[in-house]
Amino acid sequence: MAVGALTEIKYNPILGFKLGTVAAGIKTPGRKDLVVMQAQAGSSMAGVFTANAFCAAPVARCRQHLQDDSPLALVINTGNANAGTGVASDADALSSCHELAQVLNLDTSQVLPFSTGVIGEKLPIEKILISLPEAVKHLDINGWQDAAEGILTTDTRTKGASLQIEHFGHTISLTGIAKGSGMIRPNMATMLAFVATDVQASPTLTQDLLNQAVNQSFNRITVDGDMSTNDSCMLIATGASDLCLDEDSELVAKFSHALTELMQQLAHAIVRDGEGATKFISVEVDGGANSEECLQVAYAIAHSPLIKTAMFASDPNWGRILAAVGYSGVPNLDVNSLTIYLGDVLLVEQGACATSYTEAAGQAVMDQEEISITINLRRGAIKETIWTTDLSYDYVKINADYRS
Amino acid sequence: MAVGALTEIKYNPILGFKLGTVAAGIKTPGRKDLVVMQAQAGSSMAGVFTANAFCAAPVARCRQHLQDDSPLALVINTGNANAGTGVASDADALSSCHELAQVLNLDTSQVLPFSTGVIGEKLPIEKILISLPEAVKHLDINGWQDAAEGILTTDTRTKGASLQIEHFGHTISLTGIAKGSGMIRPNMATMLAFVATDVQASPTLTQDLLNQAVNQSFNRITVDGDMSTNDSCMLIATGASDLCLDEDSELVAKFSHALTELMQQLAHAIVRDGEGATKFISVEVDGGANSEECLQVAYAIAHSPLIKTAMFASDPNWGRILAAVGYSGVPNLDVNSLTIYLGDVLLVEQGACATSYTEAAGQAVMDQEEISITINLRRGAIKETIWTTDLSYDYVKINADYRS
Repeated sequence: MAVGALTEIKYNPILGFKLGTVAAGIKTPGRKDLVVMQAQAGSSMAGVFTANAFCAAPVARCRQHLQDDSPLALVINTGNANAGTGVASDADALSSCHELAQVLNLDTSQVLPFSTGVIGEKLPIEKILISLPEAVKHLDINGWQDAAEGILTTDTRTKGASLQIEHFGHTISLTGIAKGSGMIRPNMATMLAFVATDVQASPTLTQDLLNQAVNQSFNRITVDGDMSTNDSCMLIATGASDLCLDEDSELVAKFSHALTELMQQLAHAIVRDGEGATKFISVEVDGGANSEECLQVAYAIAHSPLIKTAMFASDPNWGRILAAVGYSGVPNLDVNSLTIYLGDVLLVEQGACATSYTEAAGQAVMDQEEISITINLRRGAIKETIWTTDLSYDYVKINADYRS
Repeated sequence: MAVGALTEIKYNPILGFKLGTVAAGIKTPGRKDLVVMQAQAGSSMAGVFTANAFCAAPVARCRQHLQDDSPLALVINTGNANAGTGVASDADALSSCHELAQVLNLDTSQVLPFSTGVIGEKLPIEKILISLPEAVKHLDINGWQDAAEGILTTDTRTKGASLQIEHFGHTISLTGIAKGSGMIRPNMATMLAFVATDVQASPTLTQDLLNQAVNQSFNRITVDGDMSTNDSCMLIATGASDLCLDEDSELVAKFSHALTELMQQLAHAIVRDGEGATKFISVEVDGGANSEECLQVAYAIAHSPLIKTAMFASDPNWGRILAAVGYSGVPNLDVNSLTIYLGDVLLVEQGACATSYTEAAGQAVMDQEEISITINLRRGAIKETIWTTDLSYDYVKINADYRS
């Protein structure tokens, strides 16, 4: 189950970028679980990776190859995280890069490896090596939908987004896919995202644009506050279009806006498919003195199991929201001046339940599938928004059953 | 359901301290819900209260009365937190103090008020005022068990502890009761605790001893990471015994040790009765450079919903523990030198699952009701221990159903 209607995603192909997907039998026979991606020569690649001190071998390998070379291919498996198995992890990551490099006639350091799934079991590397040539045969500019399926783990839906911007009669396309539903929190999660665009951009600018967009999208979502060892988000600029970002600041602004929009769509899709999610919750904290305190309050709310279970129960339990704001740790918080809204209903003012508030009005908001909680701290002009889910029986069931 | 066998608590009475409990019909007719306590003249009282910026009116009132006067009586109601109802909250807290003061012939500022239960509904103050004289009639040196029942909310068990220490042929008694099962986290929670002793001690020393003991007990437990608006912990020294702490540093050390032990027993009882708890989990972090980083790692584990659901499922999912240690935020953590034990089974070394580890050995530990997770950071000599629970279906059920 996920929050919101299932809509078909129309993937605009990206010139100079192909995807190929096969079933390698890594965990479940017959399931699509191995994806290769290839970008044309001259493409720029940028990556953002997990901040977890225990990062998986493929993540370390990606960082190294991005530093040493100009990668042009990606190999992604689901069903196994290739993490926590000691020296074997890196050897396996490296040999998958090596094999794909052979088939594509690239250097090993031009291939980036990604793995997601169970931690601590050895990667069945032979299955990957034997299936790579077939995956390469499937490489296709229209391979997005298959790839979106091929990277899923506990996800119940594929996650993709595609949009185009016009600039003086030229069109730039951006298309991306993502996976992730549990272990989602700021600074990445058990999350993979791959976005490609046909614009021309230097590797440095590509990295800057990716950092900015990630900070306003994937780093603003949380499901359970956990952070995985494998999170990765890639941006690939093939340069197949006539437009170049590096010489056009107006286009950079336009592109950056579109990239953030696309990444927010992917990030929201992850939250909507959060493990056991029945609600999609926006937490907006306005009137802060700085970004940090806005996020402190927002995450105190988004991580409170008491608020999350109340949301699951559609219970407008404003006392729990008030308590979370109170313990968020913001210094010198004036609890009498702040306001809390549930949807457009004023819930708390002057440190107590608003006199205008009625249970019926609160209940009407809570009965919806998409809920916003808005806090105005009334001590500055900064605003931050994050997105999260409720905490349901199914969250417990999924995570008690699944060895991830 | 709570973790561990139910054992009968033998309460040693404390000379100079009486408790009286009645059913005032505050929320549920017929249920014990109003407790008064009276300490003899000359007693010292100390309190530690919630760090929540939204503290409830009774908490603010307690702080004020402890600052202004030398309180000798307490009035405690369950069923309503007297929080979040604006100016009425304080007026109600004050009038309950005033009424009890009248009956006991004290000043209003010699009475401390405590409330626990639903936030945001007006306290039915008339029911309290009308029942106070009867509660006073019940005042009894042996009133501990009734009082332990009278302060409960979602608790499934009463929580009490009692112990004695000998010193040169004299005996000092310490007896305490507590309530709390959800909204439990460091720096207090929806938790009330009242501990009395017959030793003589100045108010300043009483406060110092309470602070120390709270820091090693109630501030080291967490169920769901939430922190309530009403948490309070009181220590009352009646001075009825011949022994005085202020002139005997050896006795202070002995008493402090006993007080910490007693408060840990109460704190553990709260965790064992954590909402939906099926496991009692100790998280020990040793080898830290300082206390702060030990606690960072310990709370990252204790607050991880993924680890807590794995514990509920009795799944030795070491990958989730490893991931939580990795994202705890300890700077320059050397993931290759630390070790993680589950019970006495080595789980992780050199950044991966230990080669000696077997699923059978891990499973044998997980199948127990009481589980310890021990991390050695191998970068210093500091150790910290905290206690927590698993995350079960029942946690969600209790908090989705109960308007607290």
